Amino acid sequence: MTSFAIVGHTARTDGAFSLNDLPSTGGRMDVLCRCVNASLFLSHTLRRNVDCSLVLLGPPVPQKTVKFSGTSVRSLNPDERSPAALIKKALAIPCGSEFRESSAGVMVRKGGLERLLQEHRFGVLDEQGTDIRKCDWLPDAFLLSDHQNFTETEVALVAGCPKYGPAVLHADHTITVLHNELDRRAGGWE
Amino acid sequence: MTSFAIVGHTARTDGAFSLNDLPSTGGRMDVLCRCVNASLFLSHTLRRNVDCSLVLLGPPVPQKTVKFSGTSVRSLNPDERSPAALIKKALAIPCGSEFRESSAGVMVRKGGLERLLQEHRFGVLDEQGTDIRKCDWLPDAFLLSDHQNFTETEVALVAGCPKYGPAVLHADHTITVLHNELDRRAGGWE
Repeated sequence: MTSFAIVGHTARTDGAFSLNDLPSTGGRMDVLCRCVNASLFLSHTLRRNVDCSLVLLGPPVPQKTVKFSGTSVRSLNPDERSPAALIKKALAIPCGSEFRESSAGVMVRKGGLERLLQEHRFGVLDEQGTDIRKCDWLPDAFLLSDHQNFTETEVALVAGCPKYGPAVLHADHTITVLHNELDRRAGGWE
Repeated sequence: MTSFAIVGHTARTDGAFSLNDLPSTGGRMDVLCRCVNASLFLSHTLRRNVDCSLVLLGPPVPQKTVKFSGTSVRSLNPDERSPAALIKKALAIPCGSEFRESSAGVMVRKGGLERLLQEHRFGVLDEQGTDIRKCDWLPDAFLLSDHQNFTETEVALVAGCPKYGPAVLHADHTITVLHNELDRRAGGWE
């Protein structure tokens, strides 16, 4: 099982955004949608052994976490609108402290990074991190920031996590490169 | 200069598609839009030394080629709708046998793969190709298919091109992985 988590610093926490304007009305929800798809899609199938959590920190009611489970997600297509519609649906249901499923394989709860850090031993994708190709061991959970850098508070929270790089790419492209490295190792291509 | 070209087997060749439904009305134009963005975007800037050509083979008037030039493109954002809007604009102008600019850095002409093959020495991304990491030399132009495989006619056209892999990914993810390999070599990371 591989887990990805992406912090969306401005991403809306209710369903009041337009699928026709994810960048602006969604608080750069487009970035998070591409990360979901980079996490979960292979060419003609889904990566069933992957989940992807989105930490939403935008208005009106931060923090919420929306999780896509590759094991059980349905009705997900590789265009941006498709995960966006599922996120919108998740954000529209009442949200408690435990995950509640809003559609198959998509769930939502209150809380954000601090709680996720208690549940996973994340490697953090970071420009100054160790080149992933040169690491003998890689963790099974990876944390990324969206188009903004981690805040000082977040940097402090992840201070103990190993850092991996290079990550001068968009978050979704970083996930794709990382998947490639994990695929190569799993497939014994080296 | 690095060039990417993607064959869009069902992609519409006029502007009569909806930005709100790229997969269906655009003939999987969403796939091509993601390829444009994977080709041209770095984290906080554009790759100015890259161009990306889309070979459109769908109705009503195939074939057309829309080219994005990283050198001069403007008003391009990393969400899918942004390149889609520029493609729509390109497909709306009269189209001749030579490239004509429809907006800054975006141009369109009649013709498709056969003509592109006369202009570039493409490496073809292919599942059975040689692992890119193991190639001493890589070309500066790469050809990919969209969500469909190359047709028999296309396979015959590219028979003489070197094949690179692995490419069991979505076309845009393949571009991202390939960029990473080129970046590493250019940066001397190995």
